[in-house]
Amino acid sequence: MLKNEDNILLTRTGPDAAMGKLMRCFWIPAMTLTEVPAADEPPVRLRLLGEDLVVYRDTKGRVGALEERCPHRGASLFFGRNEECGLRCVYHGWKFDVSGECLDMPNEPPDSPMKTRVRARAFPAREAGGILWLYMGEGEAPMLPDFEWLGVPETHRYVSRWEQECNYAQAMEGELDGAHVSFLHRLVNAVDDDERALTGSYFRDDTAPKWLIQDTDSGFIAGNARFVADQKSYWRLNQFLLPFYTMIPPRPGDALLTRMWVPKDDEHCWVICVTFRPDQAIGEAERQAWKDGENSHRKVEPGTTRPTERLDNDYLMDRVEQKTITFTGIKGIRAQDAMVTETAGAIADRSKEHLGTSDRAVVAMRRRLINEARAYAEDGKPPPAAQGGALYRIRATSGVLPREQKPEDSAELMASSRVPGN
Amino acid sequence: MLKNEDNILLTRTGPDAAMGKLMRCFWIPAMTLTEVPAADEPPVRLRLLGEDLVVYRDTKGRVGALEERCPHRGASLFFGRNEECGLRCVYHGWKFDVSGECLDMPNEPPDSPMKTRVRARAFPAREAGGILWLYMGEGEAPMLPDFEWLGVPETHRYVSRWEQECNYAQAMEGELDGAHVSFLHRLVNAVDDDERALTGSYFRDDTAPKWLIQDTDSGFIAGNARFVADQKSYWRLNQFLLPFYTMIPPRPGDALLTRMWVPKDDEHCWVICVTFRPDQAIGEAERQAWKDGENSHRKVEPGTTRPTERLDNDYLMDRVEQKTITFTGIKGIRAQDAMVTETAGAIADRSKEHLGTSDRAVVAMRRRLINEARAYAEDGKPPPAAQGGALYRIRATSGVLPREQKPEDSAELMASSRVPGN
Amino acid sequence: MLKNEDNILLTRTGPDAAMGKLMRCFWIPAMTLTEVPAADEPPVRLRLLGEDLVVYRDTKGRVGALEERCPHRGASLFFGRNEECGLRCVYHGWKFDVSGECLDMPNEPPDSPMKTRVRARAFPAREAGGILWLYMGEGEAPMLPDFEWLGVPETHRYVSRWEQECNYAQAMEGELDGAHVSFLHRLVNAVDDDERALTGSYFRDDTAPKWLIQDTDSGFIAGNARFVADQKSYWRLNQFLLPFYTMIPPRPGDALLTRMWVPKDDEHCWVICVTFRPDQAIGEAERQAWKDGENSHRKVEPGTTRPTERLDNDYLMDRVEQKTITFTGIKGIRAQDAMVTETAGAIADRSKEHLGTSDRAVVAMRRRLINEARAYAEDGKPPPAAQGGALYRIRATSGVLPREQKPEDSAELMASSRVPGN
Repeated sequence: MLKNEDNILLTRTGPDAAMGKLMRCFWIPAMTLTEVPAADEPPVRLRLLGEDLVVYRDTKGRVGALEERCPHRGASLFFGRNEECGLRCVYHGWKFDVSGECLDMPNEPPDSPMKTRVRARAFPAREAGGILWLYMGEGEAPMLPDFEWLGVPETHRYVSRWEQECNYAQAMEGELDGAHVSFLHRLVNAVDDDERALTGSYFRDDTAPKWLIQDTDSGFIAGNARFVADQKSYWRLNQFLLPFYTMIPPRPGDALLTRMWVPKDDEHCWVICVTFRPDQAIGEAERQAWKDGENSHRKVEPGTTRPTERLDNDYLMDRVEQKTITFTGIKGIRAQDAMVTETAGAIADRSKEHLGTSDRAVVAMRRRLINEARAYAEDGKPPPAAQGGALYRIRATSGVLPREQKPEDSAELMASSRVPGN
Repeated sequence: MLKNEDNILLTRTGPDAAMGKLMRCFWIPAMTLTEVPAADEPPVRLRLLGEDLVVYRDTKGRVGALEERCPHRGASLFFGRNEECGLRCVYHGWKFDVSGECLDMPNEPPDSPMKTRVRARAFPAREAGGILWLYMGEGEAPMLPDFEWLGVPETHRYVSRWEQECNYAQAMEGELDGAHVSFLHRLVNAVDDDERALTGSYFRDDTAPKWLIQDTDSGFIAGNARFVADQKSYWRLNQFLLPFYTMIPPRPGDALLTRMWVPKDDEHCWVICVTFRPDQAIGEAERQAWKDGENSHRKVEPGTTRPTERLDNDYLMDRVEQKTITFTGIKGIRAQDAMVTETAGAIADRSKEHLGTSDRAVVAMRRRLINEARAYAEDGKPPPAAQGGALYRIRATSGVLPREQKPEDSAELMASSRVPGN
Repeated sequence: MLKNEDNILLTRTGPDAAMGKLMRCFWIPAMTLTEVPAADEPPVRLRLLGEDLVVYRDTKGRVGALEERCPHRGASLFFGRNEECGLRCVYHGWKFDVSGECLDMPNEPPDSPMKTRVRARAFPAREAGGILWLYMGEGEAPMLPDFEWLGVPETHRYVSRWEQECNYAQAMEGELDGAHVSFLHRLVNAVDDDERALTGSYFRDDTAPKWLIQDTDSGFIAGNARFVADQKSYWRLNQFLLPFYTMIPPRPGDALLTRMWVPKDDEHCWVICVTFRPDQAIGEAERQAWKDGENSHRKVEPGTTRPTERLDNDYLMDRVEQKTITFTGIKGIRAQDAMVTETAGAIADRSKEHLGTSDRAVVAMRRRLINEARAYAEDGKPPPAAQGGALYRIRATSGVLPREQKPEDSAELMASSRVPGN
């Protein structure tokens, strides 16, 4: 459980909140590049960390991310005209480039000092890994985090974004919580011993994993072990990366993945999921399955970020399926995750929890974020991870070890938790 | 009128409010038994006194009423699995019996002390009189109130529940207010002198009833008299029973009734209505009329507790019918009542009222509840009525007396205000 | 920009707010007369300055405007019966005439002093100029403002009302802001040099008007000049009249107009627009165009005050039309105005603005209203304009002057800013 004071610190991410300030030291993954308009096309809206923006691409192909409201008198730039390397407010024709500079202020005298003095608030933008990244902080932007999937060809990667109706930390807790896989995603009548992974026998046979948390500069490894046959342990090394990234190891043969739990505002978050294969293209069938909300991605209403199975329709739960097929009666692994995190409330009251040994990764994530936010509030020094770069060349991995062996003593397992060649 | 401080005291019923604490000394009628699931069927949601619960029936047929959120990390138990004498949270498989005891905690080590230490918050439940009763207070539950209709066969009784969009006290005021019958429920062109009752001549000929309030251990009698022919008075002895029950006398030949005005939260209440005939079965036509929203019950959208005529559709008021048939143009006596109480606001501002002699029962109810809540807050002793039992063997009754006779001097009338044989 | 304290003073208009008190010194235009029911017809609802009223017309044709909630126990008088010179609450039959006097209180004894003591809160009403006016202040009502259009025949006038989803001051700023016409209402490919007015060359050729604010007893003249050919200036003398009236000069040949920006509550306002021709009837085609939302009026959903192009549907903006026809892609000049003012938020945060020379009329309006509200709060003396009458015999006008001539030195121009014959 958390004291109310710590819960507030953990969950508030607006410009004036300590956690909001910490996050603004990092590049923020904002949307998929397929959602970013083409050059000179109309802008789109985006809410991020409690701020309302518009995103557009100018004539030269550069992406601009501006505060939605015009600095003049607040009219929405969403209705603006994207023309000749600037977004023009339709109220008085003020036109801003991607850096926020005012290129034209035609309702003021030509010699007005206002044109140079007034700027739109603009956020530096980068396109990488199929994602639009924004820097919402002060001063010079750092390096991007050098995730493995930034370097793979577009054909090898699939990226999607959807909205979740709760605070980012709560949504992320559902991912760090390795224990729930044994239940929430279980099949009711599963018998196949060969399926070792997501709904497989490893998860069924030992439902109380042992945990090992190992801090790193960019976050921590959340190792969890299940006893398996022959006096061995099945270890999964999940990854938490500051400030809101998670990685879980794939089933054998499955694509690798990273998930991002990005605050939309304090009561909603964006989930951005990248699945990728380092050395081969994603097949059409697999890509389609993800679009349909299978496995790592979530099904959304066409053309939106709104999930099909969601809070206000009880996730289209089917009580007959719950008795006969899946543990929840809810279609889609991600919708199942959303149900357990969203139904705890938009911002869960963590003073009412009862945490056990299986919640160690959840506790570690909260502690790490709270400590980092407190430290930054005190000394004003961003954590090393905010510098991005190679600290993010990390993988989640899994392996079977002799029961008495610690994972950190397995050179092979530890090596597989880093991107090969690093 | 009420001071704002008293209005708050009267209307707030959450766990920390004085009135909420008083009410939690009593058994709370929660839903009809037809709404309670069968054994091993999925749970249903219930909001009561501002708290969110799930209700289920276990394999042995026992009813469980648990706080909706799992004590572990808050996932909703509504999505839980009702299996083998317990409700299992789908997040980590914690399983709770009807008493709140944790029967299984499979994500923790077998020897974890948590399994015995952590309990779901569970509310004792009873099934009686076609109603599910819950005890939401501390310590030992008292006796149920021994209403007459708890003892009649199911065939002799009809119970329904619907939602009203205002505070419980305000809704109940509409029932205690005997004077409005002369107006709100009037027929515009009624001429039939034989209909003595609801819309009949007694109510038309004297529209300013005289009141007599007589306190009892379980509430008070709200007697109201109308002058009728031959120097006589038509007396109606309504009943208020702590903390939110009302009885009004039936028309000759009609079924008897009790209504319960149970807080859902501070801005909504449940109305539960029992109509019954002590010595004969309810006929099919009468039962169907009640389902259709005639007389004592209210029409709801099929399978819900949401009334068909309601605030957001102006109660389907028909202005032509208002000119030619009914005083309001609204179908259904209960919908008419709901209109006058709901349109005063979710929690009426009682500092703006102008009360007259016709409001004496309303005033008496407020005073009684406020005094009881204050007394309980001070001395911690529940009122005698909270013990339930025979204090509730009460009826509402009516009769015609010589104008100079006080009702309390009529042995026959007073005797008819108690259940026969008590 | 405004300090937050001044922004609150400007925008709050409830009964206890300083601006609300100032406004209540004036007659308030409330609705069009076509919306007021006929004699003995059912009442209609009206929210005005944050208060909920019902409006009805009695048997003798007099208009009553009463607080919606019955003074007895708060039931809505909207559901009341309009009969024999009074509106009767259906709860207990209390009946109120247009002055608020209680004509009947049938649930109280005939000799009860309550009937004379209790009154419904009633607002004096006047019908003039196609508009229902209410006086919501204390004491004797002043004269109506003697707008020119009060004196023209009904055939010469068209009045409409619609709702805007932001504070009244913000909506009005969109009208006083003469500079935006050069942009917001522009046609993308306009070439016709003959159209001098709304989208014409005067507005295209000089987009940075020079301003002259001239205070008057009833408000101020907001003169704005654009340089045109031959060393001349095109002057437009807009009018602001206390507390929420604006006039803008018509294009040559167009009807004259007055707009009223009346608070519904602090986050919504009513726009009432009168267009009129002093000396000829409005033709059917022009009237129909206004009904269809062209030029001075706005298109609404049939039988309501809800605009067809509105905030929650992005004003039915068409991005193709925005590229090829209109500057905004939004149909209707008034819908375009609504977009730029509503998207700044229900109550704009004026601490974030950057005002320039083109905002001088906006600044003048805020200053004037704030100063008047402060003065009235201090000395309790309503401003002279509250006395109405001839101070409102004003017109907006326009004309072309030599560039060096000040408009106040042009006797002809200044004369045309008053109603002829005054």
